[in-house]
Amino acid sequence: MGIEIERKYLVNPTLWQLTKPLAVATPIRQGYLSLNPERTVRIRIKNNNAYLTIKGKNEGIKRIEFEYPIPLEEGLDLLPLCEGAIIEKTRYTIAIEGLTWEIDEFEGENLGLIVAEVELQAEHESIRLPVWIKQEVSLDPRYYNANLVQCPFKNWK
Amino acid sequence: MGIEIERKYLVNPTLWQLTKPLAVATPIRQGYLSLNPERTVRIRIKNNNAYLTIKGKNEGIKRIEFEYPIPLEEGLDLLPLCEGAIIEKTRYTIAIEGLTWEIDEFEGENLGLIVAEVELQAEHESIRLPVWIKQEVSLDPRYYNANLVQCPFKNWK
Repeated sequence: MGIEIERKYLVNPTLWQLTKPLAVATPIRQGYLSLNPERTVRIRIKNNNAYLTIKGKNEGIKRIEFEYPIPLEEGLDLLPLCEGAIIEKTRYTIAIEGLTWEIDEFEGENLGLIVAEVELQAEHESIRLPVWIKQEVSLDPRYYNANLVQCPFKNWK
Repeated sequence: MGIEIERKYLVNPTLWQLTKPLAVATPIRQGYLSLNPERTVRIRIKNNNAYLTIKGKNEGIKRIEFEYPIPLEEGLDLLPLCEGAIIEKTRYTIAIEGLTWEIDEFEGENLGLIVAEVELQAEHESIRLPVWIKQEVSLDPRYYNANLVQCPFKNWK
């Protein structure tokens, strides 16, 4: 069974600017065929590749995840079927001390939001946080991408 | 874009019994990650194969359809994530005059329901109906498999 163990953090934008030139930038567009947190179904277009991803309910920082590459053309056909808005973001990827960090700078309705994610091998794996990490938000459902479709950052108080 | 054009019929069980021995029987189990008619997401286990299928909203007898084979083990892991009941049925397949008919005999909560489907190349393709066909139900949403999860045949008046 595919299990994703992931921690999520807010980013200090000023400090992040200093590291950002070292990271690889990838544009991402994604939408959801199911926004239900019990079983999200995501269509993602990343560079010129498309993926269909199913995730189960979060249990702490862990959840079931299955990802299938699909033909790009079919991914683009499926995007308009999605519920609600399409999320657009640029993902910056950078390896630091053996861990791969993914820093998502959101656009559109979620402009201003910058979130860093790191995938772990075990729930209690200790990690050294880069200086541009501000605060952990792993357990805060507002930051789930599926929730950002329904309640985008610009509407937060 | 994958388009499915399909007509659906009720079956006369007595007459169908005479043809049934000529058909190939396949057990099917399926569940839905999304039951929303705008975008159903289905996990199907058929023999020892698993498929992930996305269908768009019905427009008459036509709708968008994309199907992806997935590893059996992952299909079995995804089934418990599905919303509501799992549909169980035996599918009988038979070729008649160049068309492939699929006759589904439902089990469990939908026991007693027998539905025949035929996939067409065009919406207005003329077809000769086998003698065991009773009545067309292509446009009746009660017979959508996604709806049989929520409102099974045994609960119908």
